[in-house]
Amino acid sequence: MMMISLKQAQQIIKDEIKKIKFHSDPKELYNPIIYFLDLGGKRIRPALTLLGCNLFSEFITPAINPALALEIFHNFTLIHDDIMDNANLRRGQQSVHLRWNNNVALLSGDAMCVKAYEFLGKTEGKYLNDVLEVFTQTALQVCEGQQFDMNFEERQTVTETEYLKMIELKTSVMFGACLKIGAITGGASAENANLLYDFGRNLGMAFQLQDDLLDVYGEESTLGKEIGKDIVSNKKTYLLIKALEISKGAQFESLKNWITVKKFDPEEKIKAIQLIYLSLGIKELTLRAIEKYYLKASEDLRKVSVSDDNKLELKNFLFSLRNRRY
Amino acid sequence: MMMISLKQAQQIIKDEIKKIKFHSDPKELYNPIIYFLDLGGKRIRPALTLLGCNLFSEFITPAINPALALEIFHNFTLIHDDIMDNANLRRGQQSVHLRWNNNVALLSGDAMCVKAYEFLGKTEGKYLNDVLEVFTQTALQVCEGQQFDMNFEERQTVTETEYLKMIELKTSVMFGACLKIGAITGGASAENANLLYDFGRNLGMAFQLQDDLLDVYGEESTLGKEIGKDIVSNKKTYLLIKALEISKGAQFESLKNWITVKKFDPEEKIKAIQLIYLSLGIKELTLRAIEKYYLKASEDLRKVSVSDDNKLELKNFLFSLRNRRY
Repeated sequence: MMMISLKQAQQIIKDEIKKIKFHSDPKELYNPIIYFLDLGGKRIRPALTLLGCNLFSEFITPAINPALALEIFHNFTLIHDDIMDNANLRRGQQSVHLRWNNNVALLSGDAMCVKAYEFLGKTEGKYLNDVLEVFTQTALQVCEGQQFDMNFEERQTVTETEYLKMIELKTSVMFGACLKIGAITGGASAENANLLYDFGRNLGMAFQLQDDLLDVYGEESTLGKEIGKDIVSNKKTYLLIKALEISKGAQFESLKNWITVKKFDPEEKIKAIQLIYLSLGIKELTLRAIEKYYLKASEDLRKVSVSDDNKLELKNFLFSLRNRRY
Repeated sequence: MMMISLKQAQQIIKDEIKKIKFHSDPKELYNPIIYFLDLGGKRIRPALTLLGCNLFSEFITPAINPALALEIFHNFTLIHDDIMDNANLRRGQQSVHLRWNNNVALLSGDAMCVKAYEFLGKTEGKYLNDVLEVFTQTALQVCEGQQFDMNFEERQTVTETEYLKMIELKTSVMFGACLKIGAITGGASAENANLLYDFGRNLGMAFQLQDDLLDVYGEESTLGKEIGKDIVSNKKTYLLIKALEISKGAQFESLKNWITVKKFDPEEKIKAIQLIYLSLGIKELTLRAIEKYYLKASEDLRKVSVSDDNKLELKNFLFSLRNRRY
């Protein structure tokens, strides 16, 4: 069977995105969408949809429209998240609400959500019902995850379980859905499609936890962003949640103090919290959690009943994610 | 054939909306949706979907899920419009962004848009593709209409053609879509479904123009809102656009002056502009435009190839709209 690589899949998606047609008017509605889709991004999610399909079928065309729907939906959530989080930068460029304004970002986002369903609606008839169901459930979960994330910002404490649930909804299920929808359009059995969903979900969990870790232990040059931003902003990452959970006495007080004090030297704060993490073994704890999810993902992929050769690209993908630098 | 009345259709929708289940968590996401759907409204749009179906089929069950999708989508656009227009009241109650905050209104709205597609996805398989297509095209047009409406606020002049296009997109096509989707699920031919679409669209045009007229010539007691609010706020209604188009000399200057002056006595402004409208015959011009759309709608309905008996409820509906008081 002819298998495409992740790179090829990403290229197919990039080419297809360039071909998307929008009405020319009103410009204020469509220019922000075109701008945002032009910012790029790695197109990993829709590429996974193509790979998910390709596991079961040489013919990946049926996966393209749903893959585009998933990518457009993902970008829509980013535009609206940027409004909610008051984030001014996205992929190194101005976010939509900054470049235009909140109303434009709001309405363009809405149109993008609808546009996502336009592409989803082009899914081949025999797969349409299943694809719609997975997509819509996932889309709702992503909204739920974003809401939990915002709620957590207002709260004093968040448990590990709550945090894991939140990142599962906000980030991981989308990876699962991308792979499952691909599998469906490749004619996979329900069992195989669900295994791929779990593979994607577990991969997504590992990926998000890694992101938390990279903020503290990444290499700035590789990462392309500053180290310690989550620490400075008191972001409730897996690391901070675990540290608050297991620290005791003076150490707990010191941690509490660092996350409540208003005036501080950022470098000093980063170093102090890194020291606390070090003495608590937070890095190792987090690595263990990450490893657990990668193992689960590997196990899910192993159980998918196609040849090992066909699984190679997804195995390599897992391997490359696992080796992100910290 | 057993025909349901508009009232019965509205009641069916009201009952079905009460039955909708939402996840219990996160409350901040779902409580605003439940709150907003509880505010009521006449449920005219989804009721029209049931009537559209009932024209062609005694069995209206297949129209219920798409009807709910249309109502949920409509309510989603209201929540987001209220953010964009900074409107604090909706159906006499606090709008979502006022009662909670902008982020909650934004994200709950997003979830509602997805929820609309969840119900749409439950459409019977054989109708799903057609229903999805009409729905999605209409949803995009509604976004376009809202954007044009916001653009017009920033502009000095808007032509009649531009205004009619805007209200067509923002308001009228949704009525068309509701009826057409109903017709599709009733097994109507493409020709009949399109005639019903045109019927709804023309009805929507007449309805919106009537709204403009009622702001100036309605009876406060019947209308339940103050007269002249559009005049005070310089809203670019059909009446103002026509008046700016046909007035000349001193009258044009006086009109221009009233819409640019910052400090004024509202009652004086309302009376002055009413006088200008009177001398220009704006009421008659607007009534003529409204009548034109009602005539078109009647003609569309006449051409639908079902018995006159079956059309009675839609005819009555048109008649009752046409007789709204001014």
